[in-house]
Amino acid sequence: MKTIAFVGLGAMGRPMARNLIKAGFAVQGYDVNPAGLEDLKAAGGVPTGSAKEAFAGAGAIMLMVVNAAQAEAVLFSNGALEAAPAETIVCLMATCPPKQVQAIAERVAMTGRRFVDSPVSGGVVGATAGSLTIMAAAPKDLFESVRPMLEAMGSRTLRVGDKPGQGATVKTINQLLCGVHIVVAAEALSLAEKIGVDTKSMLDILVGTSAGSWMLKDRGPRMLEADPEVTSAVDIFVKDLGIVLEAGRETKAALPMTALAYQLFNSTSGRGEGIADDSQVIRAYRALNGTT
Amino acid sequence: MKTIAFVGLGAMGRPMARNLIKAGFAVQGYDVNPAGLEDLKAAGGVPTGSAKEAFAGAGAIMLMVVNAAQAEAVLFSNGALEAAPAETIVCLMATCPPKQVQAIAERVAMTGRRFVDSPVSGGVVGATAGSLTIMAAAPKDLFESVRPMLEAMGSRTLRVGDKPGQGATVKTINQLLCGVHIVVAAEALSLAEKIGVDTKSMLDILVGTSAGSWMLKDRGPRMLEADPEVTSAVDIFVKDLGIVLEAGRETKAALPMTALAYQLFNSTSGRGEGIADDSQVIRAYRALNGTT
Repeated sequence: MKTIAFVGLGAMGRPMARNLIKAGFAVQGYDVNPAGLEDLKAAGGVPTGSAKEAFAGAGAIMLMVVNAAQAEAVLFSNGALEAAPAETIVCLMATCPPKQVQAIAERVAMTGRRFVDSPVSGGVVGATAGSLTIMAAAPKDLFESVRPMLEAMGSRTLRVGDKPGQGATVKTINQLLCGVHIVVAAEALSLAEKIGVDTKSMLDILVGTSAGSWMLKDRGPRMLEADPEVTSAVDIFVKDLGIVLEAGRETKAALPMTALAYQLFNSTSGRGEGIADDSQVIRAYRALNGTT
Repeated sequence: MKTIAFVGLGAMGRPMARNLIKAGFAVQGYDVNPAGLEDLKAAGGVPTGSAKEAFAGAGAIMLMVVNAAQAEAVLFSNGALEAAPAETIVCLMATCPPKQVQAIAERVAMTGRRFVDSPVSGGVVGATAGSLTIMAAAPKDLFESVRPMLEAMGSRTLRVGDKPGQGATVKTINQLLCGVHIVVAAEALSLAEKIGVDTKSMLDILVGTSAGSWMLKDRGPRMLEADPEVTSAVDIFVKDLGIVLEAGRETKAALPMTALAYQLFNSTSGRGEGIADDSQVIRAYRALNGTT
């Protein structure tokens, strides 16, 4: 169990792999991007030439890829997963729609291997600090066997259910709330700007009332800055609210607020601001209102 | 300054007047509804036959009427305000659009009297407990002269600006955030119901993450009850989001999320559920999704 295969060494995956290495795990990792492999090597890990190579001898497989399609390709192309020990545990940590997580879990189970649905929240900041929230769904004993690894990457490792898809569901609902809360904060602040009040002192008051949200407190101040530091990009919410809407399509549930919030993030990305801090969805309102 | 005229003895106004009396103020009050006058009398106040009568000898006038049109009628019909002492201070505590508050303030100033824009939040629960948040806009000395009265009704009495309209603006933005946060909580929980997870444990997790909001924590549990206690009714948000949209019309600001949230509250009211707890806007989602 001390050897972990880590696939997906992007902005989140790199610091997550580094934290596993710091906690004493042997990490052998793969990414199509050579920069990810170099980062892993510098951190004391072992880069490999393919996912299949990374899986050899691994007690657990951590996937921090972009989406469910990538996860499926990584696990099953060229019989990759068959190269892993029979007792390996696959932890899918990427944000994916719940039904797609269930489908992947079933394919993993058909190879006789075990699966933990374990998406994360907290962004690059949380991944770097090792303070991610991890929403894992798995039977208790299975959860306990991966818990030390998950705790190397997160400060809140929660078991949210027994069955694959339940972690993804909680993460989906989490992103729905986060994304809409950011957009409504932008709508509120842009109205205040248009009416003309001191938005900074107003924000100080509102975060402490029944109008408060975690996002209002965190993103609100950055909405009032012209060009804030990027802690999480607009395009992350274009992707994540897309996944929320996909979950709505899969279950035929009405998500009108999410659909509208998605439009505002998506149009911000379309104006070339996809890599700006997600607080800058307020620019969609400024564009609509003709203010700057 | 010890005598207060209080006009608008409805669900909020009655407990507010009671708290003023408890704090040692002499309250003479008026409402078109005789039940409000009886309640005032039972609490030790003096009911009057008109607003004009209530104004006689009052150091301050508190208005807790339904809207700006009522406030205007109460103050200026039959020269009512002229019956008040020249040094009286008019406190408009009802939720009104900012520009209408400015217009009323100007008419009050033309009579030589002073005006404090001082809307409240906290609902009937906060009015009864004397724990309202009061968002007052007035010059500092004027604010200080009404502060003891406001503090008899609220536990957070904040000066949010100097000029009439600024209190109404902060209250408008507050209601925008509150109303949308309730609706998005309903959207999130109804999606979780449709996918099928334990919504109660999921809610426990989410209130502590970046997905959290004051409303998710407060209204979320009541959304999962079949027929919860009414702490604030659906129709209050039909009214208050209507005022937010009115502020948007006045300033020509785009409020797409608010407009959508309004539709969901309004249709809930239209199905005959306007007096249900506002958490029951989740029934709009259950109606859309065909779930119960």
